[in-house]
Amino acid sequence: MKFLSNDKLVISGAAGMIGSNMAQTAMMMRLTPEICLYDPYRKGLEGVFEELMHCAFEGFNLTFTDYVEEAFTGAKYIVSSGGAPRKAGMTREDLLKGNAKIAEDFGVNVRKYCPDVKHLVVVFNPADITGLIALLYSGLKPSQVSTLAALDSTRLRSELAKYFHISPDEIVNTRTFGGHGEQMAVFASTATVKGEKLPDIIGTERLPEKDWEDIRAKVIQGGKNIIDLRGRSSFQSPAYLSICMVAAAMGGEPFRWPVGTYVNNDRFSHIMMAMETEVTKEGTRIIPLDGTPEEEKELENSYHHLCGLRDEVISLGIMPPISDWGSLNPYMTQHTC
Amino acid sequence: MKFLSNDKLVISGAAGMIGSNMAQTAMMMRLTPEICLYDPYRKGLEGVFEELMHCAFEGFNLTFTDYVEEAFTGAKYIVSSGGAPRKAGMTREDLLKGNAKIAEDFGVNVRKYCPDVKHLVVVFNPADITGLIALLYSGLKPSQVSTLAALDSTRLRSELAKYFHISPDEIVNTRTFGGHGEQMAVFASTATVKGEKLPDIIGTERLPEKDWEDIRAKVIQGGKNIIDLRGRSSFQSPAYLSICMVAAAMGGEPFRWPVGTYVNNDRFSHIMMAMETEVTKEGTRIIPLDGTPEEEKELENSYHHLCGLRDEVISLGIMPPISDWGSLNPYMTQHTC
Repeated sequence: MKFLSNDKLVISGAAGMIGSNMAQTAMMMRLTPEICLYDPYRKGLEGVFEELMHCAFEGFNLTFTDYVEEAFTGAKYIVSSGGAPRKAGMTREDLLKGNAKIAEDFGVNVRKYCPDVKHLVVVFNPADITGLIALLYSGLKPSQVSTLAALDSTRLRSELAKYFHISPDEIVNTRTFGGHGEQMAVFASTATVKGEKLPDIIGTERLPEKDWEDIRAKVIQGGKNIIDLRGRSSFQSPAYLSICMVAAAMGGEPFRWPVGTYVNNDRFSHIMMAMETEVTKEGTRIIPLDGTPEEEKELENSYHHLCGLRDEVISLGIMPPISDWGSLNPYMTQHTC
Repeated sequence: MKFLSNDKLVISGAAGMIGSNMAQTAMMMRLTPEICLYDPYRKGLEGVFEELMHCAFEGFNLTFTDYVEEAFTGAKYIVSSGGAPRKAGMTREDLLKGNAKIAEDFGVNVRKYCPDVKHLVVVFNPADITGLIALLYSGLKPSQVSTLAALDSTRLRSELAKYFHISPDEIVNTRTFGGHGEQMAVFASTATVKGEKLPDIIGTERLPEKDWEDIRAKVIQGGKNIIDLRGRSSFQSPAYLSICMVAAAMGGEPFRWPVGTYVNNDRFSHIMMAMETEVTKEGTRIIPLDGTPEEEKELENSYHHLCGLRDEVISLGIMPPISDWGSLNPYMTQHTC
């Protein structure tokens, strides 16, 4: 009946499929008794609250509100899945603008109502951009704002397990860094298959180059595949993994997957992307990791793609130019690891 | 990283909203490493399997199949949410016939492929009937087949907590027995509110009779209210509570709510209904409990309603007459507690 923490956790976007699963997951994992469900869509939010009350968990102070001030005041952890889904007739740019605005409001509200928050986890797409915007407007340290970036890595583990017909537990340390999906950089050199290094298998008859390319394609299509199969976007895995990130930030079980974090060093400048990381009570910290020259090149390509997306967002006026970032969040001009 | 059991658990109906939540819940609760997802709808089933693989749980042998023989062979626990939803143009009788047939097939398959199963939990509606049919055709002992019947009791806890503006933890031992919803028998005498007996509060200014009637109405409408609010049937609470029942049957945490169980004693004859129960590795056992004369009368009314439903099902030819039950499942003619 113990809890990991007594701090207030806010599930933002709790009326949605990811948000409602996050809430159930956080309660089952007993992260904290103080859980507040927030969503501007009050009706659906109340439905989720009712469902969770009917589970009859013990020891919780579960609350819900559609007032952001009430939700965020006193919050120490916030996990946000509160993006808008793409609707018919919407362009990619419309979606980007809409979610960027939600991320901006999220950051502004954090700064206004809970500047003492310890950690934010941002889940809504495109997380590399929405996380960046939330960090900018919140004024928090880069170590305090993380984005969900684990799914490509866990999908790689899954695809390799299926390919070799072995337990996923025998596939260790699969890693993709940088951007998401087509833009991801796969670091095969970090992974082992039954103790053997993955690059030693790629290109052999056990895993011909063509099959490896197929596996990579399946990872990239992992999200789309869920939509094709279930008729809805994935919600169980993003919800579960995001709550595992919060647990690690609360000092619980280490999070074993890459996390999207702000990077600003000699090599990568003013960007949010998946890196080798450690999440602790002190926040998210980048862990230096060297890939092969080819992998590092892939990561640089991924970085440049993300820069292009960031610059597009800036040129559309969705985000201020980098030169203005320092006045909004001085931490973002400092060097990270 | 420990598991509660090493026995094979089958989640039947795993492609659905309740089933997929059950699977995630069972994995998070680490009931057993041997989890098999079964559903005749292979496409959706594969989508759920993919989602759970992407969660990257450790230590599991997670499998999925749309072949019932493969799924049920070796199963020691099965939880089934595999009913059909009511579709446009379907009458109540159509739905009843459809789900009764599913329950019959379920029981027949259990007898055929896993006669050594330890416990079944039946979740699909109307559970008092589908559970009865599954028990009949499985040939199992009544103690081995349980139905989810906790939701009215947990909803009563929730409604009382909301009414008094106190923590649900201060509402203890709310109980409804017999049938579900409008036919439920509320045993107010078992419950306490902040240590005070609920019947001592009902009818006072703290809980006027009219307000108590409103609370009862809200409990009865609890499921409908979720549909109104979320636009879909409740799935999180039935999934979570059903898996808690499986956990108790595996020897884990006691299940703290009424369970639907077969009753055949001097007072209630050949019926499946919610009773005060204990779920252990030995199965579900009825615990004698005396309500007030009014409550006992309510329970009898509820029982008679269920008998009417059962007899209707028999007269429609969906289920054989009681006189034939002994040849299908001799245990059902024996007296229970």
